[in-house]
Amino acid sequence: MIEDKNQQRTQLSDLGEFGLIDHLTKNFKVKQSSTVKSIGDDAAVLDFKNNKIVVSTDLLVEGVHFDLSYMPLKHLGYKAVVVNLSDVYAMNASATQVTVSIAVSNRFPLEALEELYAGIETAAKIYNVDVVGGDTTSSTTGLLISVTAIGEVVNDEVYRSGAKPNDLLVVTGDLGAAYMGLQVLEREKEVYKVNPNNQPDLEPYTYIVERQLKPEARKDIVKLLKDLEVKPTSMIDVSDGLSSEILHICRQSNVGCDLYENKIPLDPQVISTCEEFNIDSTTVALNGGEDYELLFTISQEDFPKIKANPNLTVIGYMREKEAGVHLVTRAETKIELQAQGWKNFNA
Amino acid sequence: MIEDKNQQRTQLSDLGEFGLIDHLTKNFKVKQSSTVKSIGDDAAVLDFKNNKIVVSTDLLVEGVHFDLSYMPLKHLGYKAVVVNLSDVYAMNASATQVTVSIAVSNRFPLEALEELYAGIETAAKIYNVDVVGGDTTSSTTGLLISVTAIGEVVNDEVYRSGAKPNDLLVVTGDLGAAYMGLQVLEREKEVYKVNPNNQPDLEPYTYIVERQLKPEARKDIVKLLKDLEVKPTSMIDVSDGLSSEILHICRQSNVGCDLYENKIPLDPQVISTCEEFNIDSTTVALNGGEDYELLFTISQEDFPKIKANPNLTVIGYMREKEAGVHLVTRAETKIELQAQGWKNFNA
Repeated sequence: MIEDKNQQRTQLSDLGEFGLIDHLTKNFKVKQSSTVKSIGDDAAVLDFKNNKIVVSTDLLVEGVHFDLSYMPLKHLGYKAVVVNLSDVYAMNASATQVTVSIAVSNRFPLEALEELYAGIETAAKIYNVDVVGGDTTSSTTGLLISVTAIGEVVNDEVYRSGAKPNDLLVVTGDLGAAYMGLQVLEREKEVYKVNPNNQPDLEPYTYIVERQLKPEARKDIVKLLKDLEVKPTSMIDVSDGLSSEILHICRQSNVGCDLYENKIPLDPQVISTCEEFNIDSTTVALNGGEDYELLFTISQEDFPKIKANPNLTVIGYMREKEAGVHLVTRAETKIELQAQGWKNFNA
Repeated sequence: MIEDKNQQRTQLSDLGEFGLIDHLTKNFKVKQSSTVKSIGDDAAVLDFKNNKIVVSTDLLVEGVHFDLSYMPLKHLGYKAVVVNLSDVYAMNASATQVTVSIAVSNRFPLEALEELYAGIETAAKIYNVDVVGGDTTSSTTGLLISVTAIGEVVNDEVYRSGAKPNDLLVVTGDLGAAYMGLQVLEREKEVYKVNPNNQPDLEPYTYIVERQLKPEARKDIVKLLKDLEVKPTSMIDVSDGLSSEILHICRQSNVGCDLYENKIPLDPQVISTCEEFNIDSTTVALNGGEDYELLFTISQEDFPKIKANPNLTVIGYMREKEAGVHLVTRAETKIELQAQGWKNFNA
């Protein structure tokens, strides 16, 4: 939150659209053999031979999905790519290419966009995907990023619609951290407004702040499931909150579900921060969102293959549709699950 | 420009994101055999078997690329799809799928988005492409549309980089009409501001206004070239203006070009409107943009195959790089071509 007033600023209008794209993408290297032609023509050309491909797209809007007062642009570029790759992995596919378009107002100097693209490039490198296209345009206000991710179906694709009664519900990693990280960042922003000289101490919140600012997609899980010879019956990524995602699987698979509150994986930092903020940690895990973990169902006979893995937690049990979708609380009462993750249009 | 004050308005917040996507896309039908899974999962699944695919993406921003005071939302949806398909055709490919994402502020009621999607659906139907995904989110101001188009390489793909000295430069249709249509609409908007009761008479401008509000992409040309057994050596679509596109081909192909002013195809309505506005029609053709015609180069031996076709006009001649890129005027003087098409960042 400290600004260097002497930093160099290059106006975007000095470059023009094509100069800008060339400048921002000149270090991008082609890594995927399926990339025949990358940035620089009317379209990218990809060649997947005999395989199915998957395509996913997301928009990130300033003031809705991110706040630049605490989100560094490099992290934002990284996150914009990662959240799209997460959708590709949720199909049990391997991510191969992305296109990245941005609309940006004149208040951003070139150096800001370089930061953004450095984050995009870092994500592309770490996740081994090629940036094969995009559009760069001005906006009347703020920054908007649109990413389309493309992937290749390596084994069989997995939809949201294949869950069966008696399947087990499994989630990777832990939940609620990104949301609590956001609460901490929002609080520090308010403190900063009152006293700009106050340096925030984020040390006790390292994990949850990183989960908010630099989320990772579970590329490793697609490989793990293959190695374990487990094919999920359904899968989705946790972007809008566990509750919303379970309801998607249940609706599209025509099944019900019992989710066990005491099984929901929480990091100790989430629990302590929830206590500090006086928020119920289950509510946070259910509705916080932005976890980018994978939620999937497996047949019970696959349970022995996954039970020893520390990345995977069985959190529920799929039922007949008529049984409904419920949270089974620690007190063993049942509460109907409701989606509350996505409220942007109420903003 | 006449508003019905009694129209029904449904707030977007009543639906939520998922309800909104379901509502807007419920009539979309899958037409392409390569579409395995369309809207409704983390990603679409496509299967092109042994073929190459092309991917292109564009952003349209309110206040930059369109003005809703004269652009009906249905036309906007249509145009957003068409301008992306144009990029796919410019690769000599067949368009098969699109994803459409929108960011929209609360000032748009549901009925407005229905209009927008009706235009998207109409374009998808006419051009025989499937809408296979997208994202719908709120924005703090205005409307933004991001479209990614996917296509299949049917014959060989054509890049911007294959033009050779002595090739002929060919353009489809005519140029400058969309720009002059915009000038007429801008003028009528100013008149309307002064006198809202004044009904504009757009009758003398039907063609040029339609070229601005409802452009078409040259799907027919990809088929025509195949039927004529002509493979262009390079190709690009005319979105930013003829001048800018010629410079792209010359730069990426390492060639020069002589463009003949007296060969540039202009519709009579463009000529008469240019006279009325006291604008030079060649300047309009060179720098106006939004024509969505195809510009390509062919080997001279292919000339007999195209010379009788009324859709195709030879407008120039490719030269060695050292000869430069010039407009040869009617007075037979040579002027160096400069790109002036894209000035959004100066706005």
